[in-house]
Amino acid sequence: MVGEESAGEEHPLWHQLMALSEFREPDQSGWTRRLFSSAYQRSRGWVREQMAAAGLGVRVDEIGNILGELPGRDPGLPQIVLGSHTDTVAGGGRFDGMVGLLAAVSVARELGRLGTRLRHPLLVADFLGEEPNRFGISCVGSRAAAGQLSESVLSLPDAEGVTLGSALQVLGAGAFPPPAWDRDRLHCYLELHIEQGRQLEQRGLELGVVSAIAGIHRAQLTFRGRPDHAGTTAMADRRDALAAAAEGILLVEEGASQGGTGVGTVGRLTVAPGASNVIPGEVVASVELRSADGDWLIERHRDLARSLAELGDRRKVEIELEWISAEAPTLCHPGVRRVLGDTLTGLGHPVAELVSGASHDAAHMARITPMGMLFIPSRDGRSHCPEEWTEPHQVLLGAEALLGAVRRMDAVDAL
Amino acid sequence: MVGEESAGEEHPLWHQLMALSEFREPDQSGWTRRLFSSAYQRSRGWVREQMAAAGLGVRVDEIGNILGELPGRDPGLPQIVLGSHTDTVAGGGRFDGMVGLLAAVSVARELGRLGTRLRHPLLVADFLGEEPNRFGISCVGSRAAAGQLSESVLSLPDAEGVTLGSALQVLGAGAFPPPAWDRDRLHCYLELHIEQGRQLEQRGLELGVVSAIAGIHRAQLTFRGRPDHAGTTAMADRRDALAAAAEGILLVEEGASQGGTGVGTVGRLTVAPGASNVIPGEVVASVELRSADGDWLIERHRDLARSLAELGDRRKVEIELEWISAEAPTLCHPGVRRVLGDTLTGLGHPVAELVSGASHDAAHMARITPMGMLFIPSRDGRSHCPEEWTEPHQVLLGAEALLGAVRRMDAVDAL
Repeated sequence: MVGEESAGEEHPLWHQLMALSEFREPDQSGWTRRLFSSAYQRSRGWVREQMAAAGLGVRVDEIGNILGELPGRDPGLPQIVLGSHTDTVAGGGRFDGMVGLLAAVSVARELGRLGTRLRHPLLVADFLGEEPNRFGISCVGSRAAAGQLSESVLSLPDAEGVTLGSALQVLGAGAFPPPAWDRDRLHCYLELHIEQGRQLEQRGLELGVVSAIAGIHRAQLTFRGRPDHAGTTAMADRRDALAAAAEGILLVEEGASQGGTGVGTVGRLTVAPGASNVIPGEVVASVELRSADGDWLIERHRDLARSLAELGDRRKVEIELEWISAEAPTLCHPGVRRVLGDTLTGLGHPVAELVSGASHDAAHMARITPMGMLFIPSRDGRSHCPEEWTEPHQVLLGAEALLGAVRRMDAVDAL
Repeated sequence: MVGEESAGEEHPLWHQLMALSEFREPDQSGWTRRLFSSAYQRSRGWVREQMAAAGLGVRVDEIGNILGELPGRDPGLPQIVLGSHTDTVAGGGRFDGMVGLLAAVSVARELGRLGTRLRHPLLVADFLGEEPNRFGISCVGSRAAAGQLSESVLSLPDAEGVTLGSALQVLGAGAFPPPAWDRDRLHCYLELHIEQGRQLEQRGLELGVVSAIAGIHRAQLTFRGRPDHAGTTAMADRRDALAAAAEGILLVEEGASQGGTGVGTVGRLTVAPGASNVIPGEVVASVELRSADGDWLIERHRDLARSLAELGDRRKVEIELEWISAEAPTLCHPGVRRVLGDTLTGLGHPVAELVSGASHDAAHMARITPMGMLFIPSRDGRSHCPEEWTEPHQVLLGAEALLGAVRRMDAVDAL
């Protein structure tokens, strides 16, 4: 554990983090390194070098995941997998994903430095393309590992009609569909990540154990009223699509505030015809609900449909709520959570559990192996922006906790 | 009074209305004839011909108003002015403005046909450019008549940097600023117009007397919150600009519904950054309040500022309410209203008074002479759209009422 606020800047892990962030797209703001960019392709060579220097045997799998292996003392035992990603969103930061991958590499390096050989083999995975990309799919590498990529996704087109399949080929990802990883050869999956929220900071904590990754329900919400002259149409005669949408936005907010276990957001909204002297005739808005509690999501989903129907009848506005996607929450494995909690206790830190509002490669890995996640703080909760920041000593503490968790998991035979 | 629903189609006034509507911009939808368009310029020659054929002495004044005069028996008496406009909005209809101008021409024609000579001189005015134009100014001709056009408006630019002054020159409107009309030479101003609302239709009426023209207060409303990750920011930690705007929209609606004497509209709204997974950071919206009751406008204006301040404090969202314009209501002259009411009674119609939510040339003429307006129904309240419609018999009834009102005003010496 590192005690001083400014400590850690001289550590190889911090140096690597800053070095990786320099692989960036020159014509983009922030620290941008998107899947398929030349900056991303270049950075992958560097990642392989860092893995090899840490003593890992490096290979690239069929979908393009970079994998570094460290043999265990008992070759019959399943692998402990550590992973995250090294791509960013446009205008992103230097920590989301990179912290977890480079901390995993530092675990291998540290084991080598200490001369420690684990019972289980260790696998470090730089999963391909975790962030949403221009083909509308995220977590390409971890979905593939979990056997969730069907051949049909290869036909996904971008705005210019290029397919995901041909873009992957350019990146050197060949055989498709890639084989799912063999569950029987996996002991567990651990991922260190920045929180991207304010819970740790608000509670004055340096480390957190993730209890679950939120499920996400997304909908398009359309309000159809009647565009009328704003000067000559009495308030009682109006079918104002925007006034109805205003109530709808507050219904989403009010519903999401119930129970304190989820969030709900209307992030996008357009008004037609959109003139100051015309009553809005049509409003289209996005709705997103997230929670680690699947029942909560389904209840909110149902409540919203019911309250919007009442709203539409009352205002004589036609309301259409079209659900586009509904991903269930992912619970972290109780056994892994316990081990992670013990690790924090061993480091002298309180055990705080929290929900991840953002999704991660870990959500896909959870389909095939016991999964657990550790969070370190994000300053002011900012993420997916150039201001994204975690203090050096917090990054090192996260890597220390990840190493501790690996040691403890190595001692466990079955979860 | 015409009794049958389909009657009137053979009347010269209806024929003229349909003929005028054929002067339209070929590349625009609906019945479009905007100020400065060649369709408008061509129609003005036709208007002069119709005026002359009705026995009016035609001239064009300094700002481009087409004026048709009929001498009175007593040359010392002031003029009875009848007017409206012949330009349209883009995608507009065939009745707004045209009905009033052509009914005024038919009054002159009817007086001639009957061999009736009024005591007062009669002036028929086709006011230049009543609808909003690309220079952001409406009622160009009637503003000029009322002495409300200063030389500075000549510098108003359109989107391409052309000034109003140079556009007016092309139209043949020369000397500037044009002289205001001499109040002492005006007896009154009367205007027939379509209602552009549903009040007459809902009350089963064919004619209405306007009590006042609504004042309009317009504002830009900005909500500045904080754009955060929609998945990782707890409901309690949010400063959601759109949720705040939703409450603001409902405050406008709720305030405007008080007292039943006005309307309030949020017609335009934009959200930034506008992504489904980002909490809105900034919302900009338009606010428009209209009422014939000046106190109501000022109260709503004040209430809104107060309730938005409370809202901003509660939600930690910065709210800026910037008033762009505040036009006071225009009351129709009580004496003219009485005469118009007597006219309706004389025609066997109930006297219904109503407020005009839209503005008119009459609002400007009221500054310099006693003003009154008559409304005929708009089917389904539709206006400023190709569906704008008034039945032929309603148009003829309106013209008949206008003639009756002129005769009654002619008998009055002072109001």
